[in-house]
Amino acid sequence: MTRTDSSAFAERLARAADQVGALLTQLLSDEPRQHEQTRPTRLLAAMRHGVLGGGKRLRPFLVVETAALFGGNPQSALHVAAALECVHCYSLVHDDLPAMDDDDLRRGQPTVHIAFDEASAVLAGDALLTLAFDVLSDEACMLPAEVRIGLVQRLARAAGIGGMVGGQALDLAAATDAPDEAGMMLMQAMKTGALLRFACEGGALAAGAGEKDVARMSRFGEIIGLAFQLADDLLDVTSDLATLGKAAGKDAGRGKATYVSFNGEAAARRHLDSLVAEACALLEPFGKDGRILADAARYIADRSH
Amino acid sequence: MTRTDSSAFAERLARAADQVGALLTQLLSDEPRQHEQTRPTRLLAAMRHGVLGGGKRLRPFLVVETAALFGGNPQSALHVAAALECVHCYSLVHDDLPAMDDDDLRRGQPTVHIAFDEASAVLAGDALLTLAFDVLSDEACMLPAEVRIGLVQRLARAAGIGGMVGGQALDLAAATDAPDEAGMMLMQAMKTGALLRFACEGGALAAGAGEKDVARMSRFGEIIGLAFQLADDLLDVTSDLATLGKAAGKDAGRGKATYVSFNGEAAARRHLDSLVAEACALLEPFGKDGRILADAARYIADRSH
Repeated sequence: MTRTDSSAFAERLARAADQVGALLTQLLSDEPRQHEQTRPTRLLAAMRHGVLGGGKRLRPFLVVETAALFGGNPQSALHVAAALECVHCYSLVHDDLPAMDDDDLRRGQPTVHIAFDEASAVLAGDALLTLAFDVLSDEACMLPAEVRIGLVQRLARAAGIGGMVGGQALDLAAATDAPDEAGMMLMQAMKTGALLRFACEGGALAAGAGEKDVARMSRFGEIIGLAFQLADDLLDVTSDLATLGKAAGKDAGRGKATYVSFNGEAAARRHLDSLVAEACALLEPFGKDGRILADAARYIADRSH
Repeated sequence: MTRTDSSAFAERLARAADQVGALLTQLLSDEPRQHEQTRPTRLLAAMRHGVLGGGKRLRPFLVVETAALFGGNPQSALHVAAALECVHCYSLVHDDLPAMDDDDLRRGQPTVHIAFDEASAVLAGDALLTLAFDVLSDEACMLPAEVRIGLVQRLARAAGIGGMVGGQALDLAAATDAPDEAGMMLMQAMKTGALLRFACEGGALAAGAGEKDVARMSRFGEIIGLAFQLADDLLDVTSDLATLGKAAGKDAGRGKATYVSFNGEAAARRHLDSLVAEACALLEPFGKDGRILADAARYIADRSH
């Protein structure tokens, strides 16, 4: 497998992160928008803490680059990317709550309920999820109403009971009732996979790609979702607090079911390679225009080392 | 003030409750919808517990009757009503959490985190909020994409940081830092008022009402929002556990700032009468077609006795 052309890729990843960060900062300004009454200071601060604290912005990058592949308007793509990042960050804020994963640290910083309080973390998450749909519905997206409403629906399905939140529920259930391999795969496809899939699907939809291309990118997103989770599980086996900024080995400590626990590390690494190959094959029709997304697939897999 | 024609009104209120209950039941069926992977059983049960446990369905009724006033498609109105009820119910599920109001009972039944667990209550709330936008974006609404996307935006703004969730944050802040009367009014307008306003505004929008009529119904919704809160505050002064199904006198016990605490009970009752009169005056142009909504305004105020 070719290694990532790391300098060009790193540059584009950083650029997308900067751009979506700037838009998120603007969306979380003090100024109430039309039909809003006021923006309470502490809640706004908690939302900013949850969403502006860095992170690689991988999902926004995937939206932006998939949209670019189909010649989409970069501003439209950034709005879709910002909406998706709001959903991703809200899920982290709620996932870190004492009643859920009970994490005090994320990316080396105190989590929202530690930096603020539990009630603020619940509400900040709620407000971020709501903001995502506000952003997608806004004319500032510069997309026709039909496209915006389609994106609202796809994001809602990717994030809701049949997607990410459903996956979180299955993950909770797995703590007391260990799933079989198929159950574990389904849980991961929902919890982690659904939003990564939306990133690629949403980028294509925002760019007005045809049905076949949307389906192809949806499949691409699904595969890199699997690769992402597998890399995470492999990383969890080997890394420590210093490199991850969270309590590593925690999943393994809980005896959590993963592809690695079912099939062993060597098989997992082989499977990861085959996923990257499949992702790259899906991009072949696009020639060198698809190179940056192929790099993304390799980057995701490389996280396992 | 004319008293409510209680039999006709009660019948229409009950009919709207039945119809929206049936639609919500259907929306929360076991069957995954397009783009959903599966619907985890326990999460689905927690969502149903939060949304199908009865209640007067006042907000859905307001959507349905406002839409009817402008000749809207009843099926479209029911979808908007169901989406709004999902938002209302999610807010109750999260509001009842130990980190928030810490209530064990709602409508005489165990709250979601008691009947299930805290993590399930967080996720069920998240999934209900997400479902609301799924419902509004769906073609089953039988509304043009422009109307659906407009409704998504209005609901997001009514529910988010500048609306309901912002109001909940201000309410939390009020527990440690007592607001002045203007601050208390703003908090209530956001926490309780924003969704009631959306109910009337959204019903008008779904029926394709003109800009002036939408603004008029938005103002009507705002006023009945104030009346609703005032009636609630008056009720809290006088009633007991048996009639309310929750710990009454709790707000007063906390020395919570309300219109009643600032101005006294007699002034509050006079103000409530003037709000009902203003609401009814807004409906005058519609003649007897507006009667059912005028009954609704009186019904809301009558709750104070």
